[in-house]
Amino acid sequence: MTEPAAPDFDDIRAAFARIRGHLVHTPCLLSRTLSEIHGCELWLKFENLQYTASFKERGALNRLLALGEEERERGVVAASAGNHAQGVAYHASRLGVRAVIVMPRSTPFVKIENTAKLGGEVVLFGESVEEAADHALALAREQGLVFIHPYDDPAVIAGQGTVALEMLEQVPGLEWLVVPVGGGGLISGMAIAAKTLVPQIRITGVEAALFPAVKRLLAGQAGVLGGPTIAEGIAVKQPGRLALPVIRRLVDEIRTVEEASIEAAIVELLEIEKTVVEGAGAVTLAAVADDPVAFRGRRVGLVLSGGNIDSRILSAVILRGLVRTHRLVRFRVALPDSPGSLARVTALVAEAGGNIVDVVHQRAFSRLSVKQADVDFTIETRNAAHAREIERRLEASGFPVRPLQGDGGS
Amino acid sequence: MTEPAAPDFDDIRAAFARIRGHLVHTPCLLSRTLSEIHGCELWLKFENLQYTASFKERGALNRLLALGEEERERGVVAASAGNHAQGVAYHASRLGVRAVIVMPRSTPFVKIENTAKLGGEVVLFGESVEEAADHALALAREQGLVFIHPYDDPAVIAGQGTVALEMLEQVPGLEWLVVPVGGGGLISGMAIAAKTLVPQIRITGVEAALFPAVKRLLAGQAGVLGGPTIAEGIAVKQPGRLALPVIRRLVDEIRTVEEASIEAAIVELLEIEKTVVEGAGAVTLAAVADDPVAFRGRRVGLVLSGGNIDSRILSAVILRGLVRTHRLVRFRVALPDSPGSLARVTALVAEAGGNIVDVVHQRAFSRLSVKQADVDFTIETRNAAHAREIERRLEASGFPVRPLQGDGGS
Repeated sequence: MTEPAAPDFDDIRAAFARIRGHLVHTPCLLSRTLSEIHGCELWLKFENLQYTASFKERGALNRLLALGEEERERGVVAASAGNHAQGVAYHASRLGVRAVIVMPRSTPFVKIENTAKLGGEVVLFGESVEEAADHALALAREQGLVFIHPYDDPAVIAGQGTVALEMLEQVPGLEWLVVPVGGGGLISGMAIAAKTLVPQIRITGVEAALFPAVKRLLAGQAGVLGGPTIAEGIAVKQPGRLALPVIRRLVDEIRTVEEASIEAAIVELLEIEKTVVEGAGAVTLAAVADDPVAFRGRRVGLVLSGGNIDSRILSAVILRGLVRTHRLVRFRVALPDSPGSLARVTALVAEAGGNIVDVVHQRAFSRLSVKQADVDFTIETRNAAHAREIERRLEASGFPVRPLQGDGGS
Repeated sequence: MTEPAAPDFDDIRAAFARIRGHLVHTPCLLSRTLSEIHGCELWLKFENLQYTASFKERGALNRLLALGEEERERGVVAASAGNHAQGVAYHASRLGVRAVIVMPRSTPFVKIENTAKLGGEVVLFGESVEEAADHALALAREQGLVFIHPYDDPAVIAGQGTVALEMLEQVPGLEWLVVPVGGGGLISGMAIAAKTLVPQIRITGVEAALFPAVKRLLAGQAGVLGGPTIAEGIAVKQPGRLALPVIRRLVDEIRTVEEASIEAAIVELLEIEKTVVEGAGAVTLAAVADDPVAFRGRRVGLVLSGGNIDSRILSAVILRGLVRTHRLVRFRVALPDSPGSLARVTALVAEAGGNIVDVVHQRAFSRLSVKQADVDFTIETRNAAHAREIERRLEASGFPVRPLQGDGGS
């Protein structure tokens, strides 16, 4: 048995011909407002608008279409807690192929439910994706199923590469592709396609700063990876063996972005583009926002790779965005414990145009005299200057104010 | 001076020819998942993807292009706290026409800022849109500006009607249009266009239940309108004089939707379609969701008229959606005030697969013995059955549980 090799350009073109009618031809649109904000021409590839809300369908479908007659009859197995699971389940079931999906026990229920609804036979196993993958390989051996790797498979890489073919067709003169990097399947496929068609195109991969696996491997560095990232979709410790040499050869650079930048990018896409992008998909905009000088004036294509974000997390990210941009602030005011003092403070805030949305009294844990109370106000404001103006007015009226950081800690 | 009349089909076709190159040709896409959920074929017209995130640009631009040479030189004035303001400001400034925008003093700062950024000269005046409109009319007289009404203007109605031309072109065999109704500009324009091209097409207007102005007028009913609705964009007490006869003649029915339905529709569009739609734009999906039997099996076009929703409101709507669908629940547990009891409860919840996200102790206001505490747990759950299961396990272990409704009230 020969070792599998990365696909070449013809494989990607063939994948494109095979899968294109069975996927959403997602738009790739110029964002005028984001371009203005970031000082370059930003084109967004909306892979979050695929049926299962991520590009993963491309690779999954191409792999499924490469199955032999007998393999199709036996079925496939995959391990994933996220988008790969849904991509495989959906297209396998559409093609009448049995799909067993092994998900870690900790997988959020909504993802389990979605995968099952799409036709996947969900098996819960293990505490991590790695343990789930081991179990999937065991099931493959026992039941003669074909294991579909989320990224370390030539047919999967070829499928993901079709994103670049579409973008280059949709955006004439594209100079720069910015692509999320987890296992490396997407960027390696896209790099093979794009550098064949436009050798001078620049390709940047973006990793979450907590999971700089590819960046470290390319630099020959060791170190511990991991941590709670909002970019779950690219939280990968072991990049693909097929992808890595391709990345080394064709990708110009790997950038990393911090959690705060990813959150800010999610909010910008939501508020300005009116589109829901998951953390892994927003890292591309985060990379541009982090280094505007590098991208200044260039025609840049960003892959918004997916839109599957937990609703509670999204709600929190929106609020944290308001806090970050000083549209929601928290003050602690030392208040005399007597009738009328709260009325005075709230009137002062109202006169200054602030909208109070929460009031909490701290008594037992206050360091103040028992005749005073620490009262925490959460206030909607216009911006940092407006927040300072409210603070100034309170101080001028004899109420000492202490701005609180996000955690409200004393 | 003759009384202005509603536009006819040729006016709308002419408007289309004039404005089409200067607006986003927004997609109108089949939502497979929403179609499955609601039992009919749902096509979504994404007017929230216009540059200023609403259809209002169409009418504003068509009106601006109808200005005479001298009028263009003097400029225009409009009164609006929302999408009309942005539509007029943007296209006027693009065309080099002065645009004064009168906004009520209570307008959220972000909308004032956006309107100013788009090139509008913002004047804050009055406590309501009506007072702002009176002031705008006065400015028009004083300064010779052309007043652009948000809906009671033939050129504005003709511009809004172009939405129907696009939808009928984009969706062959469309049987039913569902359109938000505020002042009636959008639905009257769309009705003239659609009923000319496809006389048998059905047209439903949707109002917020708190503002059923058109429904009442058509039925000859009186009554007080108003209240805090999330569908601000259609919170109109006085529909247009031009629109009303058109609606009476061409619109098949007006439906109203409650706030809870509108919120649920916003969340569905966000979670499933990955798109941000404001309350006024989500009423169309809400109307379908409220009466699936009526729409069963039909090919229905929904206008998602805008995407401008306050971020803090959106964050709250998402959380309330989780509560409504029992993915976030709150229990009150009577807990012995002794070491270890909290540990036991939290362990039981964890074993049952619940994720505790908030714990609050109620002491002073508890009706329990001072040796007990009421403790409120907010828990992420899978669905209603899962919540009941957690409750059952706690009860079985000797912890009395009381489910709390949204407000957590005792």
